[in-house]
Amino acid sequence: MLIVDNIGELVTMEGPTGPRRGSLQGVVRVVKNAFLAAKDGKVIAAGPRDELPALLSGLERSREQDQEESHEESREKSQEESREEVTVLDVGGRAVVPGFVDAHTHLVFAGWRYQEYVMRCQGATYQEILRAGGGILETVRQTRRATEEALFHRALSFLDEMLSLGTTSVEAKSGYGLDAENELKQLRVLRRLKAEHCLDVVPTFLPAHAIPPEYWRDREGYIQEIIGSMLPLVRREGLARFLDVFCDEGAFTSKEARRILVRGKELGYEIKLHADELRNTQGAELGASLGAVSVDHLCMISQEGVRALRESDTVAVLLPATSCFMGKDYGKLGRKLVDAGVPVALGTDFNPGTSPTTSIPLCMTLACSMSGLTPAEALTAATWNAAWAIGLGGRVGGLLPGMQADALILDADSYNEIPYRFGANLVWKVLKKGKVVFQANKGRVVR
Amino acid sequence: MLIVDNIGELVTMEGPTGPRRGSLQGVVRVVKNAFLAAKDGKVIAAGPRDELPALLSGLERSREQDQEESHEESREKSQEESREEVTVLDVGGRAVVPGFVDAHTHLVFAGWRYQEYVMRCQGATYQEILRAGGGILETVRQTRRATEEALFHRALSFLDEMLSLGTTSVEAKSGYGLDAENELKQLRVLRRLKAEHCLDVVPTFLPAHAIPPEYWRDREGYIQEIIGSMLPLVRREGLARFLDVFCDEGAFTSKEARRILVRGKELGYEIKLHADELRNTQGAELGASLGAVSVDHLCMISQEGVRALRESDTVAVLLPATSCFMGKDYGKLGRKLVDAGVPVALGTDFNPGTSPTTSIPLCMTLACSMSGLTPAEALTAATWNAAWAIGLGGRVGGLLPGMQADALILDADSYNEIPYRFGANLVWKVLKKGKVVFQANKGRVVR
Repeated sequence: MLIVDNIGELVTMEGPTGPRRGSLQGVVRVVKNAFLAAKDGKVIAAGPRDELPALLSGLERSREQDQEESHEESREKSQEESREEVTVLDVGGRAVVPGFVDAHTHLVFAGWRYQEYVMRCQGATYQEILRAGGGILETVRQTRRATEEALFHRALSFLDEMLSLGTTSVEAKSGYGLDAENELKQLRVLRRLKAEHCLDVVPTFLPAHAIPPEYWRDREGYIQEIIGSMLPLVRREGLARFLDVFCDEGAFTSKEARRILVRGKELGYEIKLHADELRNTQGAELGASLGAVSVDHLCMISQEGVRALRESDTVAVLLPATSCFMGKDYGKLGRKLVDAGVPVALGTDFNPGTSPTTSIPLCMTLACSMSGLTPAEALTAATWNAAWAIGLGGRVGGLLPGMQADALILDADSYNEIPYRFGANLVWKVLKKGKVVFQANKGRVVR
Repeated sequence: MLIVDNIGELVTMEGPTGPRRGSLQGVVRVVKNAFLAAKDGKVIAAGPRDELPALLSGLERSREQDQEESHEESREKSQEESREEVTVLDVGGRAVVPGFVDAHTHLVFAGWRYQEYVMRCQGATYQEILRAGGGILETVRQTRRATEEALFHRALSFLDEMLSLGTTSVEAKSGYGLDAENELKQLRVLRRLKAEHCLDVVPTFLPAHAIPPEYWRDREGYIQEIIGSMLPLVRREGLARFLDVFCDEGAFTSKEARRILVRGKELGYEIKLHADELRNTQGAELGASLGAVSVDHLCMISQEGVRALRESDTVAVLLPATSCFMGKDYGKLGRKLVDAGVPVALGTDFNPGTSPTTSIPLCMTLACSMSGLTPAEALTAATWNAAWAIGLGGRVGGLLPGMQADALILDADSYNEIPYRFGANLVWKVLKKGKVVFQANKGRVVR
């Protein structure tokens, strides 16, 4: 058992325990002068410090009872276990919050695309970048060439970077393979990451991210390939929980997206949708009508889209780092959605083209400053709501008894400092399933 | 002597060697497969690696000559010195750029103001925040109460944070004292920081940051106090090189700013100006006409202001983190100024109200993505041009022979990655005056 003690401010979160039409929005619950107890990877208690003695003596009593009921031999063993068992971590009044959940990433890719960023800063249009060989297809080319081993090690280092910034669960998409072989390669990398890294990795299959060059003259052919071959194959291999489609101008139409998603649902995928990012193509409405777990981006969502989400079980995932990195200001989009009663989650959208950041704290600042959320709403969006957006609701994203003990101990007095300290990393230690898995070391300074 | 060898991409910079009417804009100069040699704190050579043997044998020859000309006894000593002297740091193909110069900070303050950020995210207006006791005056209250010792140690840790993000020179303002005693306290802290931290700290006196409460009914009284008493006092004590005034709506009028700055110039201060941030009050024109070294913010600059800067020796300092943190998008301001031929520098504006960030790389991303600079222009703005904006032009901000050997060794192939890797810290090692003063350690990860 681990007891995190002397917590100045503990955020436990609170919210609905299941989807009920637009009611997934969590809320921040704060306990001052608190403790958090974890056992076997889960939170067993969290509350004010003055309740800690009662918890400890209760545990002691139940242990004694166990021992009385057990034989002489096993009693000794049990005593030994109980002696080893309780570790107290005094955090000196620091703030503790649930580990961040990054609800939208494109984690597995080869190469960077900074030359494209340079071109865009010089005023190049999207079309000019495409003609110069840039865009998603540049990453597809590089990812196809890369070995599974190379992709795995690169993504592993990205997970380390995310962990150091407080992310303890992450959704990750394929979508840079765009053929069966290379999509499976990406998804196998995700399976291996899940097995070999402490972070929870939730895999999403995104074959409809772009039309691959070999199908440019046969768009319908690629959609048939997805529906007829790739969807059943990936399902058989059990490589992805979610199916996602990039439904937008220049990507897949609403009609194409619907065909792919409907077939996916039949095969047992839960669904997600890149919706209304560049143009309003009624993506939010489509996602809501199909019972998508989340619709993501939503920069161009209409009032009808907002209403559709409110009347659904679908979470809105906002990606404010992408907007900022692309030099766009979509006004107070987050505020609009929360005010309408839509549950809002956050993601980095980590990818080499439009959002090369792994930082959820940065996204929280942008969600507040640019998109109109409060720090409490941004934290909710990055924890409780994001967990629901990737199918981990009730398991992670909060620190209530029974939930996974994924927590951040911050070099800060209050969770409000996370978005406030723009660009800073306040993470001191990260707990994953009740164990310390990251310890900050700010580097060596010679003054 | 230190030789940084095996540099994949070395940025040396290049530009005018002194003010000549809008000509201070530097440019990025790149050498591939390069080395950098530093001695006695300065760059002695920088160029392609194939020139390194010639440099080394040249040094060897001149050393031998020295030895032949010297007596037996001192020859031994000299041989010993030369043996100790040459350290080679192989950086494995990494990119090396000049250390960042942060041209605008409010480094010395007590407390944070995250409650004010929460209020603002909840929709509170500036006036409501003021009525609730927020704004600059909240920091003034806390800074007046703080001891010099406490302010010093806090600012010291901020300098460590800046150094870890690649800043090697920083301008820092008073302005949270607003009376002789407490402004001097802040400036003494800056003097001590300069003495005890390796960073170059350039002190700016900012008595006209706000009207202090004790003068709310006697605005002219405070201006008289500044002109008649504080300006000469700080000058006598030699505590500040620059004088700055916050000239804007709700702060000081153009007329008041002019009176204070003119008197400051007479006393020997070089001048700066917070100009045209909230409203256009022709601050840029005022700064240019008075020969200010820089005018800062400029969100609301007019075409006349742009023209005035182009015809002056004044550098435009942009603070894009402030705009972003305050949720404002001022269009492609950086692009407009560079296209008009105005030299543009960057600063964090680090302060607890409107820009709680110490990160120049973050400012570079925002300068590119939101304000329209290219990565090369953003790097120039954060090095060469920023040095000129704080009176260190020609000494720091570049890696040409004779300049201070302040350099960043990056975990990156190209300087373009600095703004591209949004929110990441690519700094691997920092050299200040030819010595390694920071070494990154990303923290301990248990996978």
